[in-house]
Amino acid sequence: MRKLSVDTVLRVRIKHRVGQLAKVATAIAEEGGLLGDIVTLGIGSEDTFREITVETESDEQAARVVDAVRRVDGIEVAGVADRVFEAHKGGKIHSRSRVTVEQVRDLRTIYTPGVARVVRELQRDPTRAFELTSLGNSVGIFTNGTRVLGLGDTGALASLPVMEGKAVIYDLFAGVSATPILVDTRDPEEFVRIVERIAGSFGGIHLEDIRSPDCYFIEDQLKSRLQKPVMHDDQHGTATVALAATINACRLILRELKNAVVGQIGLGAAGSAIARLIISYGVREVLVTDPSPVALERMVGFGARAVDLPTLLGEADVVIATSGRPGLIQASQIKKGQVVLALSNPDPEIDPDTAVAAGAAYASDGRSINNALAFPGLFAGAFRARSRAITPEMLIEAATTLAGLAEPGELVPSPLMKQVHAEVASAVAARAREIGLEGTARP
Amino acid sequence: MRKLSVDTVLRVRIKHRVGQLAKVATAIAEEGGLLGDIVTLGIGSEDTFREITVETESDEQAARVVDAVRRVDGIEVAGVADRVFEAHKGGKIHSRSRVTVEQVRDLRTIYTPGVARVVRELQRDPTRAFELTSLGNSVGIFTNGTRVLGLGDTGALASLPVMEGKAVIYDLFAGVSATPILVDTRDPEEFVRIVERIAGSFGGIHLEDIRSPDCYFIEDQLKSRLQKPVMHDDQHGTATVALAATINACRLILRELKNAVVGQIGLGAAGSAIARLIISYGVREVLVTDPSPVALERMVGFGARAVDLPTLLGEADVVIATSGRPGLIQASQIKKGQVVLALSNPDPEIDPDTAVAAGAAYASDGRSINNALAFPGLFAGAFRARSRAITPEMLIEAATTLAGLAEPGELVPSPLMKQVHAEVASAVAARAREIGLEGTARP
Repeated sequence: MRKLSVDTVLRVRIKHRVGQLAKVATAIAEEGGLLGDIVTLGIGSEDTFREITVETESDEQAARVVDAVRRVDGIEVAGVADRVFEAHKGGKIHSRSRVTVEQVRDLRTIYTPGVARVVRELQRDPTRAFELTSLGNSVGIFTNGTRVLGLGDTGALASLPVMEGKAVIYDLFAGVSATPILVDTRDPEEFVRIVERIAGSFGGIHLEDIRSPDCYFIEDQLKSRLQKPVMHDDQHGTATVALAATINACRLILRELKNAVVGQIGLGAAGSAIARLIISYGVREVLVTDPSPVALERMVGFGARAVDLPTLLGEADVVIATSGRPGLIQASQIKKGQVVLALSNPDPEIDPDTAVAAGAAYASDGRSINNALAFPGLFAGAFRARSRAITPEMLIEAATTLAGLAEPGELVPSPLMKQVHAEVASAVAARAREIGLEGTARP
Repeated sequence: MRKLSVDTVLRVRIKHRVGQLAKVATAIAEEGGLLGDIVTLGIGSEDTFREITVETESDEQAARVVDAVRRVDGIEVAGVADRVFEAHKGGKIHSRSRVTVEQVRDLRTIYTPGVARVVRELQRDPTRAFELTSLGNSVGIFTNGTRVLGLGDTGALASLPVMEGKAVIYDLFAGVSATPILVDTRDPEEFVRIVERIAGSFGGIHLEDIRSPDCYFIEDQLKSRLQKPVMHDDQHGTATVALAATINACRLILRELKNAVVGQIGLGAAGSAIARLIISYGVREVLVTDPSPVALERMVGFGARAVDLPTLLGEADVVIATSGRPGLIQASQIKKGQVVLALSNPDPEIDPDTAVAAGAAYASDGRSINNALAFPGLFAGAFRARSRAITPEMLIEAATTLAGLAEPGELVPSPLMKQVHAEVASAVAARAREIGLEGTARP
């Protein structure tokens, strides 16, 4: 997770006097606030009404900035808003009708008696639900809130704003209808049972922010029990974007990832999935290291070689770190010509500049690894092909598509470019067809 | 449930000749089809392109109509669409973003890192979820599909189009965000456990189309376990509208319902809830009859008097029938001056005209009893007051509000009038405040 950034919006009346705004700016700067947009909302006979955005590192600092501005002579603070809280007010999603109901006939079409014929059709052929209900394009985002962002175990309820954020991204980036489902249990078996019983409500199952190792058990069980796409985003969404970035990092120094020795430091949900996907991608030698013997053993089972950190850093051509331990990698450990992706947020295992100064051919931190790049297109693509799964082949297809769409010099494209998600979806659907998964989903 | 009505839309090219359209109309009539709208889509040099809507009672009859039109000389049928299936295509709801994401800052506000501050705020004070997430205005529509419309036990999946229809009504009529959740179990205890575990995903729990007696157990359990509104619509939504209709039926003949002896015939989910609500409304003598001794005993526990059908018809001033048995009431059994609401669909217990001819002061069937009149405003009102429950007082408030909004001579207003739902919501919220339930909901 990145550093907290508090955007405070002050609405102020500033008297018509020379230098007033400068005084406000100075007051903000003296408390360490970063001045953002200044927008004039209105000009009166005696004063100007303005909206000033200030960025701070904490709520406390924001409060000090507001106090400082209040103390400026000739300034009246008419209102203070917190941009983040404003944006979340009332929730970020709403289940909207796709049809209009204006006449009695409309009501009789979408509800009784007309709807009875659609019900009967689904009794006759359940797969028509993909076409006659929202099931062909809907995701349930399931979490128990046991590992939320960098915040840890917040419980299910407190994670809802994150899940709504994911749902916003699904809708705006890929036109997928997504609904957060908070599952209030820490028992992975109960979690599986509950999701299995209500899975019919959605076309796909997105698992989110579930602690490891529970997340592996839950995903494996649901994949084997359901005939519809199931994906734990913290694993495979992140791994897809990390693979895209790694392909491009190698490309930038004119190397081919497939021929490199790759070292993965840290085998949490993300790190494990990255190592697995790198293996699936065709890298023959993947070294892994982690404090947990269980995590190491699991990855050895998938074809990786367990080593200690110095060995990994000494042998790997490409190092990917998701350890969550800032400063873990010493400059002296960097091998000349190495690619270093130190992805832990908010502070990387080694500062990219330090790594390059120490001889790395290329280094980056995790700022660009936004999994909003992957999950919308992955599910949209799986839905388009009506695939019963999102397979490693489909993740790799998404990763290579993302890598190909990055601007020159960049590791990955911006998630704000809608075309990116459309292209990922097309590529993923095409790959699903090639590997024979088209039309294999069941409601 | 009402009679099936199939609306078929034929797109036809009709040669410019006198009497062509008459031939088409005749062909449709000869197969028993009811001619609806005829819309001209385009006029060419040799023919006119028209869209003709035909209503039939079955798919088979619709097919015969299409064949008959095809056989008319000079007619080309360019396309045949089924209005109901067209309307349901792609699903009727979509989870939409309420925010825009155009810049990096937007993404950082609604997702990481900004969202972390909202998560922490919810950890500190979970009740702020009503304000900072969709929880303040969202309903989960839970069903296992064991009693769907008049179709019976269709299973959960096949019921999804009905649940989506309910969600459409919630959104369009009351601005409530509603999501269907199919719970694939016939075990009422498991149903309760699952809903309890995921109830945190929604501000309110709407139970729908669950067979009796399971629906009573499920609703009672969830009401006692959750601190948020729980309502089985087939019981209380229907009872609310039925009470409104009954109040107005009495008003039409200048009687006061509270002073009447009311007889309820049929104690399924709807009938039981009607009898209970009539008792709560203040009617002192409520007679009930049903083939099931268990159902009768349950209602006696709520203060009704169990009698046989002839006794009920002989003593009641107001008769409400929801038996599902067409023709159950003989004309000879009608008492002079009685109010008869024979609500079973599609065919009532006695034809209203027959009842009036036999001496009833007022009679009606169930056509106007649409529970879309009640549930949107009931939940919207409960949400507005942040009430932890929808109580009988609130149902009665909704019913009297609905009764007051009916046009002169009508039993209830049209559900298409949006003002109706707004007024029900206001009245229900006000009542919740009066009885001390404001702010009692918990996430």
